[in-house]
Amino acid sequence: MSAPPAPWRAPPTSDGLITYDELRLAARNPGTPGEALALDITPVGLHYVLTRFDIPLIDPATWRLTVDGLVDRPLALSLDDIRRLPATTLTVTMECSGNGRAGMTPRPLGIPWLGDAVGTAEWTGAQLRDVLAQAGLRPGIAELSFTGADYGIERGYATAFIRALTPQDALRPEVLLVYAMNGQSLPPQHGAPLRLIVPGWYGMASVKWLMRIRALDQPVQAYHQRIGYHFRAPGSQTAIPIRHMRPRALMVPPGHPDFFSRRRHVAAGRVRLQGRAWSGSGIAVTRVLVSAAGGADGSWRDAALGASVGPYAWRGWTFDWQAAPGTYELCCRATDALGVSQPLDPPFDAGGMGNNAIQRVAVVVD
Amino acid sequence: MSAPPAPWRAPPTSDGLITYDELRLAARNPGTPGEALALDITPVGLHYVLTRFDIPLIDPATWRLTVDGLVDRPLALSLDDIRRLPATTLTVTMECSGNGRAGMTPRPLGIPWLGDAVGTAEWTGAQLRDVLAQAGLRPGIAELSFTGADYGIERGYATAFIRALTPQDALRPEVLLVYAMNGQSLPPQHGAPLRLIVPGWYGMASVKWLMRIRALDQPVQAYHQRIGYHFRAPGSQTAIPIRHMRPRALMVPPGHPDFFSRRRHVAAGRVRLQGRAWSGSGIAVTRVLVSAAGGADGSWRDAALGASVGPYAWRGWTFDWQAAPGTYELCCRATDALGVSQPLDPPFDAGGMGNNAIQRVAVVVD
Repeated sequence: MSAPPAPWRAPPTSDGLITYDELRLAARNPGTPGEALALDITPVGLHYVLTRFDIPLIDPATWRLTVDGLVDRPLALSLDDIRRLPATTLTVTMECSGNGRAGMTPRPLGIPWLGDAVGTAEWTGAQLRDVLAQAGLRPGIAELSFTGADYGIERGYATAFIRALTPQDALRPEVLLVYAMNGQSLPPQHGAPLRLIVPGWYGMASVKWLMRIRALDQPVQAYHQRIGYHFRAPGSQTAIPIRHMRPRALMVPPGHPDFFSRRRHVAAGRVRLQGRAWSGSGIAVTRVLVSAAGGADGSWRDAALGASVGPYAWRGWTFDWQAAPGTYELCCRATDALGVSQPLDPPFDAGGMGNNAIQRVAVVVD
Repeated sequence: MSAPPAPWRAPPTSDGLITYDELRLAARNPGTPGEALALDITPVGLHYVLTRFDIPLIDPATWRLTVDGLVDRPLALSLDDIRRLPATTLTVTMECSGNGRAGMTPRPLGIPWLGDAVGTAEWTGAQLRDVLAQAGLRPGIAELSFTGADYGIERGYATAFIRALTPQDALRPEVLLVYAMNGQSLPPQHGAPLRLIVPGWYGMASVKWLMRIRALDQPVQAYHQRIGYHFRAPGSQTAIPIRHMRPRALMVPPGHPDFFSRRRHVAAGRVRLQGRAWSGSGIAVTRVLVSAAGGADGSWRDAALGASVGPYAWRGWTFDWQAAPGTYELCCRATDALGVSQPLDPPFDAGGMGNNAIQRVAVVVD
């Protein structure tokens, strides 16, 4: 049906300024503004959006979810069919695996995320395993494929957006088929009428505009599963599939911005810094450190941790900073329950994936 | 109270690639994706957003709108007070006055809008004139000032976002104090809990996060009224205040995109092109022309015009294109009832304002 996936080719890199191709992608794939990190739940319109191709505008009345392949009972489910299943609401922090790409040196050309491609929403839907049970999975399934309605060209080859999960991953109770976000109908840009949500993973797993689930006896040969979304060291043939989010902390930029440079201006005195921290796969963040000296040795102090918003969601942190007049680089750094900490400097990846280096915020105290 | 406005200084320009400062602004000020032009009303999360400084997160329960200055009865209105006034809903097309800045040569540094900073929403609120009548405007008012809660640094000077209207403009029946967008509570990024909507004008007039209205016997000396948001020819001392939107047409990009370049791929045959066109101040668009040859002489054909979505909103247009294999540059061009047409080439403005040059969309027909 679909063409074979395009072979891997590292994107060009740049040490220079941002190209117009990158700007076009940035203008239509907004991040979550830092000030929205003050909220437990990111409102629609502030939650980051990545649209790989175009946003399909789908009529929910005629839309059907096809479930076929190695199943006992192939299905064509309406939205009402899925709404009739028991509903689950989960609060999930979702991040793009390319988040921070624009901070790499050199910079692989792609969506030039600065670090703000993360948000937290309340997703409501049916458990995927309930739908799979209705279809009846047969033995011998290698992967389930998930096809979105979005379609376009990757490196010269036309393809839909298709991802895969193993049956083991797909049957986890937290994997949902979602029709509502923050208590409202799923908006077009977040995958209406139905999307997959795979909590704990980077966002590429949570296929939007879901049209078809196929149970297959072979691994799925689709660009976005087998070629894209892998970690790759430059010059190496090894490709590691991207799955769970790496630990990360971000802060609400304090004080007021300069319009153009976005440099922050803060009044001297006690400044309450606050932010969010998360990791992947339901692993808790156990420590957030703050530095007002660009992360220099000896400058790190513990932030106070707030409660997690949910097992698959970020937690808040606060830190009281005694700000004296001068210029500063504020940093924050998360460590998770596995003992993994954010790197101080951006790691390089040939595809620009997984840069979870610490955030650095330029501040002037007046 | 506030410092005198910073003097005008033309922003630096560039003939080169996009700076990181511009990228930061693009990443937090999303445009409306072209595919959303298929919809009469732009959903929240797809409507363009410009946040000059930070998005203030305001508690609507304690928020008050102050109305003072040359009035008989100074007011401090709650949101409920404003909701109790007769409600008006207007469908309004709003565009940023800097839309298209990234297409200028050279490019004045600012938010690098590509041309997509436009959207149409249903805004619901009270008429401003009802609130002004409640306060009782005294004689001798030169301007009414409108102060938002957003605050930051413009060219070294700290300021709130403050705009002004003459009493004549402010008393027009279509000028609203708005608390709902598309039938829902106003979202934070669109000015919650209350914003001004000035239909027909570029977006800067529609102050978000409105806190205070003052009736003044002198023109308002605020940066965003007297310095910013003017048309300025390079090297000239003349500054023309920006008011109504210029005519413009945009198309829904046909076919499917290449992920990175966004170049469109279309199957040969009849292709129905569609888009939207609008002008300012309630002036109707009377003609939309389409060219498949980059706007070359003799290549323009009339599009069919749809009904306007409202007196202050865009109208649809369609054009059936017989697409033969090859590469094309599709263009569309609006003319309004005053006989004003879009320029073929971007006009230059020292502040990057008002570039309504025709859209050009690169297409490959396979």
